Order: sequence, then C-alpha cells, then structure tokens
Amino acid sequence: MTRARLEAFSDGVLAVAITLLVLDLHVDPHGKQSLATQLVAEWPSFAAYLVSFLVIGVIWVNHHALIQRANHVDRLLLFYNLLLLLFVTSVPFTTSTLAGYLAVENAQDLRVAVLLYGASMTGMAIAFTLLFARVSRFEASEGQVWSPARIRSIVRFGIGTILYPVVALIGLISAPLMLAIYGALSIYYMFNQTGVAGERAGGGD
Amino acid sequence: MTRARLEAFSDGVLAVAITLLVLDLHVDPHGKQSLATQLVAEWPSFAAYLVSFLVIGVIWVNHHALIQRANHVDRLLLFYNLLLLLFVTSVPFTTSTLAGYLAVENAQDLRVAVLLYGASMTGMAIAFTLLFARVSRFEASEGQVWSPARIRSIVRFGIGTILYPVVALIGLISAPLMLAIYGALSIYYMFNQTGVAGERAGGGD
Amino acid sequence: MTRARLEAFSDGVLAVAITLLVLDLHVDPHGKQSLATQLVAEWPSFAAYLVSFLVIGVIWVNHHALIQRANHVDRLLLFYNLLLLLFVTSVPFTTSTLAGYLAVENAQDLRVAVLLYGASMTGMAIAFTLLFARVSRFEASEGQVWSPARIRSIVRFGIGTILYPVVALIGLISAPLMLAIYGALSIYYMFNQTGVAGERAGGGD
Amino acid sequence: MTRARLEAFSDGVLAVAITLLVLDLHVDPHGKQSLATQLVAEWPSFAAYLVSFLVIGVIWVNHHALIQRANHVDRLLLFYNLLLLLFVTSVPFTTSTLAGYLAVENAQDLRVAVLLYGASMTGMAIAFTLLFARVSRFEASEGQVWSPARIRSIVRFGIGTILYPVVALIGLISAPLMLAIYGALSIYYMFNQTGVAGERAGGGD
Repeated sequence: MTRARLEAFSDGVLAVAITLLVLDLHVDPHGKQSLATQLVAEWPSFAAYLVSFLVIGVIWVNHHALIQRANHVDRLLLFYNLLLLLFVTSVPFTTSTLAGYLAVENAQDLRVAVLLYGASMTGMAIAFTLLFARVSRFEASEGQVWSPARIRSIVRFGIGTILYPVVALIGLISAPLMLAIYGALSIYYMFNQTGVAGERAGGGD
Repeated sequence: MTRARLEAFSDGVLAVAITLLVLDLHVDPHGKQSLATQLVAEWPSFAAYLVSFLVIGVIWVNHHALIQRANHVDRLLLFYNLLLLLFVTSVPFTTSTLAGYLAVENAQDLRVAVLLYGASMTGMAIAFTLLFARVSRFEASEGQVWSPARIRSIVRFGIGTILYPVVALIGLISAPLMLAIYGALSIYYMFNQTGVAGERAGGGD
Repeated sequence: MTRARLEAFSDGVLAVAITLLVLDLHVDPHGKQSLATQLVAEWPSFAAYLVSFLVIGVIWVNHHALIQRANHVDRLLLFYNLLLLLFVTSVPFTTSTLAGYLAVENAQDLRVAVLLYGASMTGMAIAFTLLFARVSRFEASEGQVWSPARIRSIVRFGIGTILYPVVALIGLISAPLMLAIYGALSIYYMFNQTGVAGERAGGGD
Repeated sequence: MTRARLEAFSDGVLAVAITLLVLDLHVDPHGKQSLATQLVAEWPSFAAYLVSFLVIGVIWVNHHALIQRANHVDRLLLFYNLLLLLFVTSVPFTTSTLAGYLAVENAQDLRVAVLLYGASMTGMAIAFTLLFARVSRFEASEGQVWSPARIRSIVRFGIGTILYPVVALIGLISAPLMLAIYGALSIYYMFNQTGVAGERAGGGD
C-alpha cells in the first residue's frame, strides 16, 4: 500500500517538524532579567511559533485530504511530496531566524529574515501545487488530462500559491503584519479547501 | 480514512513531545561538582520530567479512547485536535522553564513559571473538552444534539477541566505540591475515564 | 483498534528516542584538536551510541513480537507500556551521561554514571517483564491464570531481567565491559526470544 | 502484521532523522556579521542539508518499494533493517561534521570529515544490499535460493553499493563535488530503481 506509507512518512516528518518548533522557545533561569520580562521580550518567538504551528498543521490537514484522493502513486508524486517535506523541515530554521531578528530589531537583517521565512512558505505552496496537479492528473480519465476544467482547477489552486510570496513582500514593510496574514491564511485554509475534496468519508476503521 | 490519519499524526506529535522532555536532562562532566551532587541538585528536572511524561502519556491514552468513538471527522474537530497538540508541544518548554526556576529558587520568578506550566496544562484540558464535545456531537442522533443527557456528560467532563487551573493556583503556594497533584491526577485519569468509553474492543488485527 | 494505536505510539517513542541518541555525537570544527584526534577521543560516545541503539532496537523487535500476541488491551497494560517508554526515553540522557564520564575518567563519578545507565536498563527490563506478564494474563484461559506453566513462563522471562542490574554491577569494575555485555545481550535477544513467540505469521498486508 | 510495524518503525526513524538535519542550520542574531553574510557563509550547511535530505528521502522511497515485496519477515531481516537505520541515524552527525569542516577549510580535517560522511553513505548502501538479498531470499522458491538469476540480481544491485565508497574517494579531491554526485545519485535512484519493483499497485485503502 504505497499511499498508506506515503502518509505515514509524511505524518512523521510533519509531526517532528511541528514539535521541533518548540526548541526555539527558551528562557534563562540564571539571567539577570525576571522571567516575566524575558517572556514579554520573547513575544516574537511565541508569535512565530504559533503561526508556523498553524501553517504546518494546516498543511497536514490539506495534505491528508489531497492524498486521500490519489488513486495512483508514482515516483514523480513521491518526488513532489519529498519537495514539500523539504520545505516543511526548513520551517523550524526559518521560524527561529525570523524570531531572532524580530527581537534584535535591525531593519536590514530583519528584511532578509522575512524573505527567508517567505521563501519557505512559498516553497511549500509551490510544492503543494505540484502535488495537487499530480494527484489530479491521475484522477483525469484518458483524453481529459489537459481538459479545460482540469487546467482551471489547477490554476484556481495555484492562485493561492501566488499569495505566499506576496505576503512575504508585505513583510518587508511590517514583519508582524506578515505573520498575522500567514496565520489568518492558515485559519482560512483550515476551513476552506480550494479544490481539495473534504473528508466526508471520515471515521470507519 | 480520516480518523486513522488523525490518530497517526497525533500519535507522532505526542510521541515526539514526550521524548523531547528528556532533552532538558543533562549534567556537566566537566563541572566542578560530582555527578552525584549534580543529580541530586537536578531533582526538579527529574520530577518535572516524570510528571509531564505522565500527563502527555495519559492524554495519549484518553485521546485514543475518545477518537475511537468518533464516527465522523470534520474540519472543526481537526482544528480542536490541532489546538490540543499546540498545547502538548508547549509542554517541553513549560516543563524546562518550571524545572529551571525550581532550581534557582527565586520566589517571584517561580510563581510566573508555575503559572506558565499551569497554562499549558489548562490549555490541554480545555482543548480536550472541546474535542470531547465535538465527538459527542456526532454521536448524538438528530434532534438529540442538545439533549440534557449530552449536556450533562459534557459538563461532567468539563468539571475535570476546572481542576487544572485550580491546581496551578495551588502551585503559587508550593510548586512541588502542584507537580505532585498533576502527577496524581494523571494516574487517576489513567485508570478512570470520565465519559470516555473504555477500549474493551481492543486487540484484533 | 486499541492495539494498532498502542503500537503506533510506542513505535513513535522508540523511533524518536533511538534517533535522539545521535544528538550526543558532535565535534568542534573550531577546536584546537584535529578532527581525527577528536573522533578517537570520542570513542566512549560512539560505543555508548552503538550499544544504546542496539538495546532500543531489540526492545522494538521484542515489543512488536509481544504486543502481537495481546488479544486484549486494558488500562493496566497501557500503564506498563508507558512505564517501559518512560525508561526508553531516559536512555538518551543516561547514555550521554555515561559517555561524558567515560571521557573525563573520574573513577567515582564514572561509577555513578554506570549505575544510572544500569538503572535505565534495569527499569526497561522490569517494565518489559510486567508487560509480558500482563499479555500472558489475557492469553490464559479462565481458571488457568495462575497455572504452574504460566508462572514458570513469567519466571523464566523474569530471570533475564535479573541479568540487567547484575551487568551494571560488573560496570562498577569496568564500564567498557558493561557496555560490551549489554551489547552482546541485545544481539542475543535479537535472535533468541525467551517466551516471546516469533513472528512466523509475518508478511501479508 | 510484522511487515506493517517494520514499516511504521522505519518510517519513524527515517522521518526523525530527516527532520533532525535542520538542527544544524542556525544563524546568530547577536553576531557581528549581517544575516545575509552569515547565510552566504553557511552554504556548506545548506548544501549538505539538501544532499542528506535527498539521500534519506530516496532511501525511504526504495525501502518502501523493497519491503512491499517482502512476503516473510524474520529476525535476520529485522537485524539488517536495524543496521540500515543505525547508519541513517548517523547521517545528521556526519552531515553537520562535513558542513562544519567545509566552513573552516582545513584540508586535512576536511578529508577526515569527507571519509566520515562517505562511511555513513557506504554503510547505508551495504545494509540496503543485505536487506535486498534477504527479501529476495524469501521470494525465491525452494531450490532456487542460489539460482544464477537471483545471484545476478543481487550482484547487479550490489554494484550500486560500490559507487558509494568510490564517490567518497572523489571527495578527497573535492568535497563539494562529492556532495554533488551523492545528490545526483539520489535523484537517479529516485526515478530509477535497480531491481526494486515499482509501486504500480499503489493507491487503495
């Protein structure tokens, strides 16, 4: 059962990546500042942790809904999936970098950190679109592979993808605003799937 | 199979979070103190490790028993589950913070660490109650969604939830006592489920 | 399917713990010593890493063979399983402590590190025996729960358990010898199961 | 179902190891260099991260395709699988060592780091070949265990194995070239399996 194991491995990577985010949170019991002061000063880490957690969590939700539809798994689909996981595993790094530079407030460096974070978001969105196109490729019956309806569905899905680098550009003006928008986008995609069928058939052993 | 994958991802996060707790344990072979002295001085880390391990372990036991009952999985249920996992992944951080401040013994900072730890416990309890209410929502037949019996069952379940912030308040007086009570609560919920059906139907391939 | 999820969670914890062992391996590119010198000096870390990897790996093999036999899963069995996992998650800590003190060569501290390592090995052996007894309890037909044959089988299994603290005592004389014996014991249990039925029925989807 | 759990545990270890690679990426917000300068200087870490991610990812793809063929799982197969996982878990260590010494550019130490990295690659290739031979052993009908065709298939598979230490030797001349070749080999094995049957039968619950 290729699909079952594709899900198991992807779930594993997503679960480890989402949990590793916490390693960026830490306070210093031997520091001079009180714990309360440290926690307040660490708000960028908490905000970035929350947003990245949501982003990976929602990727899991939609990954699940998408792979459920895959009636065939080939090497190219596995490759796109690895690409998605590559960007997912980069999130703990880009998250901690963004949080670190939000805390030191150097405008130039912060912009680089914002672009780095945006790159991992955009990479995930592109890989997810490739995965979506591949799954929908196998759903299409013969002779309908490049039907207008199918292309429309991929384009519609891909439009969401364009949002991700755009939000990163907004981050050049305000990094906290970027985080807020990525968080809001995740909540939106949590409840509204574009083209990814729901999991009505849930439950059941 | 939505439910199977919900369990696989949740198991992954719970397994990683419970194992990451160990990263807070460490001694310094190049330190001036003997290893025995260091181990004794590190009792707060061991105590916090043990209690947090029990707490996450028992969440796993009850999560399993609860999701087993879910005959339907929708986006809201997935969202509540993500919320639960968010608080679970925060536990290694709040545990190491509590252990760190138990060791330095600054009364003011320790109280903040206690509240932080209590917040992650309370967050898990609230998220678990939301999850419980959602699962029981799908079990209710049409027209019985808000039956007195169902509301009673949620309330009864929710009462346990109130315990968690209360125990945190006790921690303001004595942090070790708080840890002891959270540990005892976990042992209790290990063997006594409130409203979560047992796993009598276990075994079987 | 309680058993399936018990296995999934246990597999997760075992997989994370076995992989976290690697975090104790590290060299310093900016150090004064050549890499070759550092690698040679770090032999205790490599030896401890190898032995602990084998120990956890073999626990996985036998855990799998044991749980396969469990035709019933109750709360007590889940509790014993959690106890086993508690000691498993402690292994990365006790392993790095042992490796650290093997490197600094302080006889007194090394003995404490040896006992700590032996304690986690012994804890796993005791928890595994409890798990074994619980699984065999459900296999026994009514009225045979305390049959001489069953008690003999538990005792025979438990004898292996006594080996683990004994090997730790040998470690008080020579820590490397202790590691060698734990490694050899793991290889032995890899291929010879005491009372845990084989996986002849393997394969199959 | 021995095979299912063999896959679950292996997926877990592979998922944790592939995600732990990210822990080697880090920048210093409080450093004197700009973030852009730090990211450029850290190219060896990024290159090594990418290549090791691909290597482990492709091992997962082929592991899956191989184990799918296993109609029997015995202790020796489990042992070879543990051996494979042992080398997999070493990859985060050998990767970070290689990246570290690529950054400091000490020719002598770099050669040692290259051989260390090559050793973990070669170890994985050897363990995979042993696993391949064991799986094909169970596929052979009685009396055909040492048939010329089967031996040819193992030899053909094993030839790929010889490539891995050879590439490490190339690394003695140029470490970046070695990384490039390992990356290219992974992409090749991603799409071309030698002797490992495809996953045509994918999909399906």
